[in-house]
Order: sequence, then C-alpha cells, then structure tokens
Amino acid sequence: MPDTNFAKGLAGVIATESKICTIDGDEGLLSYRGYSIQDLAANSNFAESAYLLLFGNLPSESELADFSAKLEARREIRPEIIDGLRLLPADTHPMVALQQAVAAHGSFDAAPGGEIGPAIERSIDLIARFPTMVAARARLAAGQEPIAPRQDLGHGQNFLYMLSGEVPDTERGDIFDDCLILHMEHSLNASTFTARVVSATLAPVDASVSAAVGALYGRLHGGANERVLHMLTEIESAATAEAWLDDQLAVKRKIMGMGHRVYRAKDPRAHVLEAYLKHLADKAGGSEDYDKLKVIERKMSAIMEAKGKQIYPNVDYFSGSLYRVLDIDVSLFTPIFAIARVVGWCAHILEQWEDNRIYRPRAAYTGEHNRTWAPVSERG
Amino acid sequence: MPDTNFAKGLAGVIATESKICTIDGDEGLLSYRGYSIQDLAANSNFAESAYLLLFGNLPSESELADFSAKLEARREIRPEIIDGLRLLPADTHPMVALQQAVAAHGSFDAAPGGEIGPAIERSIDLIARFPTMVAARARLAAGQEPIAPRQDLGHGQNFLYMLSGEVPDTERGDIFDDCLILHMEHSLNASTFTARVVSATLAPVDASVSAAVGALYGRLHGGANERVLHMLTEIESAATAEAWLDDQLAVKRKIMGMGHRVYRAKDPRAHVLEAYLKHLADKAGGSEDYDKLKVIERKMSAIMEAKGKQIYPNVDYFSGSLYRVLDIDVSLFTPIFAIARVVGWCAHILEQWEDNRIYRPRAAYTGEHNRTWAPVSERG
Repeated sequence: MPDTNFAKGLAGVIATESKICTIDGDEGLLSYRGYSIQDLAANSNFAESAYLLLFGNLPSESELADFSAKLEARREIRPEIIDGLRLLPADTHPMVALQQAVAAHGSFDAAPGGEIGPAIERSIDLIARFPTMVAARARLAAGQEPIAPRQDLGHGQNFLYMLSGEVPDTERGDIFDDCLILHMEHSLNASTFTARVVSATLAPVDASVSAAVGALYGRLHGGANERVLHMLTEIESAATAEAWLDDQLAVKRKIMGMGHRVYRAKDPRAHVLEAYLKHLADKAGGSEDYDKLKVIERKMSAIMEAKGKQIYPNVDYFSGSLYRVLDIDVSLFTPIFAIARVVGWCAHILEQWEDNRIYRPRAAYTGEHNRTWAPVSERG
Repeated sequence: MPDTNFAKGLAGVIATESKICTIDGDEGLLSYRGYSIQDLAANSNFAESAYLLLFGNLPSESELADFSAKLEARREIRPEIIDGLRLLPADTHPMVALQQAVAAHGSFDAAPGGEIGPAIERSIDLIARFPTMVAARARLAAGQEPIAPRQDLGHGQNFLYMLSGEVPDTERGDIFDDCLILHMEHSLNASTFTARVVSATLAPVDASVSAAVGALYGRLHGGANERVLHMLTEIESAATAEAWLDDQLAVKRKIMGMGHRVYRAKDPRAHVLEAYLKHLADKAGGSEDYDKLKVIERKMSAIMEAKGKQIYPNVDYFSGSLYRVLDIDVSLFTPIFAIARVVGWCAHILEQWEDNRIYRPRAAYTGEHNRTWAPVSERG
C-alpha cells in the first residue's frame, strides 16, 4: 500500500535549495543574500538591493551605475501594452490587468526560457516596467491618460509621479523605495513558488512572472494590508479602539495584520514601516491611523501575554497606512507589492534555471476505482 | 541543525489528496474518476467526459443535455478579447497569446476566487471558449479574420471549422474530440500543479488557468509532440528509419516521444491515438509518418529488450502525426493540449477549494550568512 502521509499545503516540505533569502521566524530576522533587511532598508537603495537579489552580491560602483542606468532607460512600455490595458473594463482589478499586461509583454522581443543571460536582461525589463504598467492602468481606470515615465527620477519617485503627474519630494520617493526593498523577497511564498514551478517547465520569464502575479492576486496572499485599512475605517478613533477590539474578540473575529505563519517575533519589516509611518505622520501633525494601530497593538499584546502567548504586527500592519500617507489609493496596494516582489520572482527564476528540474509532485488518490461506463439511458 | 533532505522537483512528494485521476504506470492504466481512459475514449464524448471530471460522476440525460447546451452556447468570445489578440505581433507564440487572452478574460464578469458555484460556471465558460481563443489567434497570426463559432457543431468539429472555415466530417470531429478526452487530465503535472498552487491563494479561476497556460508553454511540459514531428522530418523514409535511429543512438541523442517519467508500460493513450492514426492513414491510402513511427518503435523496443529493458511510446508519439492528418498546423499542438487540459485544471481548482490550504513549502537555505553592508566606495 502506498504511503499517503502528506503535509497539506506542503507545510514544512523542502521544495528546493536556495541562496536568496533566509528567515528566522523565532528571532524575527529576514535577510537577502546574507544581509539583514534592516541593514538594507537603512543603507541600500532600490537598484542596489535588486542587483543584490538577482546577482548574489552587492554591486561595485560601475556595476551599480550600469544596472541603475538600465533600470531607468527601460521604464517605457510599448503602445500595444497600453492599448491592451485600454481594452479592459474600468472595474477590472489592477492585478488582473497586470497579469494580462505581463503575459502580453512576453510577445515582444521575448527570450526563450532556460537561458540565464537573456533572462537577466528580461528580468531588468520587467523590474523597470512594472511601475509603468501599474501606473498606466491606474490612470486609464480613472479615465485619465497614462503619464510617460521619467528617467531622471528615482524608481519609487517616478512611480508616484506617473500616478499623479506631480513629482514627490525625494524623501517620499526614498521612503517608498525602502517599502519596495522590504517587500522584494520572502522565500517560497505562494507567488514565488508559482514562479519557480512555471519557470521549471522552461517557460520564459514573462510567462512565469505573469503566473506569479496571478498567485499574488489571491486574497490569502496579497491584499492583507488592504484589509488592515478596512479595519481602521471601522474604528471611530484611537479613544474607542480598545472597545472596538473587545467587541471583535468577543465574536472571535480575526484581527488583520497581526501574527504570521513564519514569524514568532515582530516582523522585522514592521519595525521599519512603523518608523516611517510615525515620521511622516509627525511631519503632517499626527495620524489617526497610527494612533489607532498602536492602541490595537498594545492591547492585543497585553491580552495574549495574559494567556502566556505573544502576538506581533506583521509586514501588512503598518504598510497600508504608510501608503495612504503617500497618497496611494488602496486599490494599488497589491500591485505595489508586485512592483517590489517581481525582483524576488526573477531572482528565483534565475536560480531555478541554474540547476533545473520540473516540479512533479504526486497526489494521493482517494477516489473511485474500476467503474464501468454505461450508456446515459441506463444511468440512475 | 534543520533537516535539509529534499526531493528535487518534489519527486515522489505527495502534495495533496485527489479524487480526480489515477495513474498506474506499471500497468499502463489511466482513469478519470475511476473510469479507464480507454473506456471513455471508446464510449464517451467531449461534454460527458468534461462533466465527469468536473463533477465526479457521469451525467444523467438531463444533466448532460444541460451541460452540453451551456458548452455550445458560451463559445463566443468578447470583441475586446479578439482586439487584445490583434495587438500582438504575428510571431507571438500561440501559448503566450492564450495566456494573455485568459488573463484578459478575467476582466469580464469574473467571479471571486474560492466560491465553488460561480467557479463551476466560470470553468464551463473557459472550456467552451478555449477553442475560440486559439482559433481566433491562429487566424489573426495568419493575417485572416477570426471565424465566429457555430453552436450546431461538435466541440472539436467547431474548432476545426473555426480554423479553416470548412466544416470537417463528423468522423474527423469525433476523433479530434477523443484526442481531447485523452489529454484532459493527468494528475499533478506541472501545469495542473500550477493551477492548484495559484488557486489555493484564492485567486479566481481565470487567473489560475492563465498561470497554468504559462506552465504548459514550457518546453519540458507541452511541446513534446511537436518535437516528434521535427524528428520525423529528419527521417527520409520508413526504409531509412533504422539507419537514422542507429546514427542518433550512436551520438546518444534522445528519441522523442519514447518513455515517460510515470509509465513503465505503453501509455494507454498511445494505443488509442495509434489506432486513430492508422485508421485515418489507411483511409488516405497510407501515411509515411505512421510507417516511420512503427519502424522506430519496433527497433527501439528490440534494442532495449536486448539490454533487458523496456521502452514504449508515450502520448506524444502518435498525436502529432494524427493532428497533421487532421490538417492542424504544428504550431497549434500545444494550444490543443491546453484546449483539452483546461478541463483537468478546472477540476483541480474546484477540488482545491473544497478543502483549501495555501501552498507554502520551505527552501533549504544554502547561501551566505551575517554579511554587513558597506558603502559602494569600500567594495572590492
């Protein structure tokens, strides 16, 4: 009799070796290529962190200049891609539009799957163009014409510019870049695993990344920070937040943005995001969101401590409110996640192809056996 | 120290339970919902087999009539989907076009992921429309206008009609339908596994199926029957096939369409396809392809037997030549695979949602630790 023990959702199963990212959930540590995420958020910029993830090492001065120049020069997307986005109804979810645009992108100058050199260039194309695709679609959905990218702005600064037509100050652009760095990579989450499974068939980079966008669209994966904001709108003020929380816990409702399948300590990304939110909130003379979040965090922590347990905010807890302070619409939160995570997807595709094998797990069959077909007239 | 044993490509790892399909590689048996594939190919039709895979049981007379009517009535695709296909360059691979079209399809009347009822209707939409999408794109790529589907033709017959504008006789349509039945489902191959991984995030049916199309595009997954045909063009005639084979084996080149990761006996689908190829070839006064294939099969078998081993044709060995007899261009072989396999993908998505958990395997980290960021000017 075949062994039919299995871990649902492949929980705990090792699917591959990887040199890209390590997570120590107990210690609350996340590092890319051996560098802690706090170190990178404090010191690195978008291009450098993306280079690090793709190539495995920090770039030299000339490597960084070359890579940054490529990212800036390749921001523009073809008119056919914009026309494709134009065909979609106004209420199309931005992630559907992005999945479609990335698949269509694979029509133009695509490289075959499995070849590392062309795949690196293709990865740079996609990393450079994701913000342009997302911003173009956001403008079209709002009945506005897309704004062409500018090469003279930072990665995040240019994205914010393409959304509104106004160039944000450098500080806001840099903070947004740091948000992207924090979201670039997180090991084998469902979308990154999807990118590896698809690319392992030797499907091209675009086809694999388009599939990953589809996975990130799922509400169990992307979208959690959106739900934190919905939660905040339910809370009248910081003064009533405790009472709101009591009501929620009484009906056993899940509190969004708290806890994580992997982290048993405060998610290291939450620390950085909280600091940025506080900084921008203070500059703006306070933030109701921030005050509510801190009340909920403290109360939740106290309740769990009384039970001998711990709970901490995860990466989604502060990010939505921070994006709101940056004037980004809530509908773009998951696409922003994709603008960051495309770096990790590409790094994993490149690593997959260095030593490839197609993913072909088994299913434990629990269905019927030995049934015999009968004509429809003889069926019950 | 964490356990870092793992099976590359998840080989032998059980990823889920499933009631859909069972394969006995040693015996050469494949069954859908407990019915052998030979039984279904001999007795069932496209709609009935699709119903069986989606719902788990053969339909009653009224269920079958209802389901068939839906499949026929929903063949048409929206003009926006056709216009999206129009935007792609002529040399776009048909699978890239299909991945894009399915993602775009998710813009229109999409149901949220995770809800079984709407997902069944959405599955029927996609099964009905895949042939229309593939045929429309094939016509556009050839500089021709798409041909609208007809409701009064069989599933395969209508597809062949939309390609050429000529209605094929019922026999050819029925044989093509049987080819589709044979390819509808094959457990957790890479594209079906992709469909499950993506849908487990609760991404909608369209997003999950679009991702699966991307996986099938990979040349390690789809496309093998295409390579069998390329092989056949290298062989001058059946008379020289043995000499050709000797040359290939002398340089250790892989013979396409032979052997399978799962089957240790002749793939049951190969039997059925061979019989159809022989039947249509005989009707047409013989087929050079068929003669070459039989010479190679016999010689390969004899060579392996002398070594105490066995090798058999797989599903891809005869299908390409059969599609050629049906006047289908080689570039459409993988899209045809998708037209069939979309049934299996949808059945797996529905099953996934009956008892869902997101797929989140681990990676064994083999990279650097505890590196410290330094300014670019201080790097080597």
